[in-house]
Amino acid sequence: MLRRTYDGQLCSIARALEVVGERWTLLIVRDALSGVTRFDGFLARMPIARNVLSDRLNGLVEHGVLERVRYQDRPPRHEYRLTARGRELTPVVLALMAWGDRHLPAPTGPPSVAEHAGCGGTVRTCLVCDCCEQQVVSGSVLRRSNAAAT
Amino acid sequence: MLRRTYDGQLCSIARALEVVGERWTLLIVRDALSGVTRFDGFLARMPIARNVLSDRLNGLVEHGVLERVRYQDRPPRHEYRLTARGRELTPVVLALMAWGDRHLPAPTGPPSVAEHAGCGGTVRTCLVCDCCEQQVVSGSVLRRSNAAAT
Repeated sequence: MLRRTYDGQLCSIARALEVVGERWTLLIVRDALSGVTRFDGFLARMPIARNVLSDRLNGLVEHGVLERVRYQDRPPRHEYRLTARGRELTPVVLALMAWGDRHLPAPTGPPSVAEHAGCGGTVRTCLVCDCCEQQVVSGSVLRRSNAAAT
Repeated sequence: MLRRTYDGQLCSIARALEVVGERWTLLIVRDALSGVTRFDGFLARMPIARNVLSDRLNGLVEHGVLERVRYQDRPPRHEYRLTARGRELTPVVLALMAWGDRHLPAPTGPPSVAEHAGCGGTVRTCLVCDCCEQQVVSGSVLRRSNAAAT
């Protein structure tokens, strides 16, 4: 239903939300980015109904965000691994996290941090201009139609 | 209902999605970032029911993402202006756009671009490490619990 109602939108934001905009979907991606791969692992981290989780996982597999891989034959057991496409949702998840940390802070401080593997530094999302190479604040961004695409 | 079901999550991503995770909400923010302020303006850009749009706008006002401002007295008319908090959702919207552009491309190319005001360059979201100051690829990010917050 979500997919159908967004259909008239020639917009990459709407297209992305067709894949990851359903309730729970980005929290599943969040947990997959933290290394969760098994059905029961996702279930343990979210108060989500089994049938809803199953539906969301199938949708993410269908859209190539997760890959369903058999890890045991007897009895057959599968796990869900992030694809490269799924891993590239990292900036979306971290941008949401940064906004939540800033505008809806937990009393005990940021519940989690994004760490640069091997370096240990904190990773932040930022906006960079590919012309002047400066970091750009949100107020200096204009989204406009791409004339080349029409 | 969304709010209630995410309540057990001590997580800034879930908290952010409580505010912007409902269907249509991020598309409303997208249009607000493009300068749309009036009810009919939003309605013209999305195949959304009036009551749903009204509900989403009220929710965004309640959470401080939009501000409801009277722009005419007779008859009374209001518009919805992004707050600073709302404008800071720019990285979330641009990260979704970049992912959609890359993984769900439109046949005619990216439907819209993010422009650096005054410079004209294209703005991109990226991940930067605040320790080594390098740009970081998605595969090099580990999200971990913040020990200081527990």
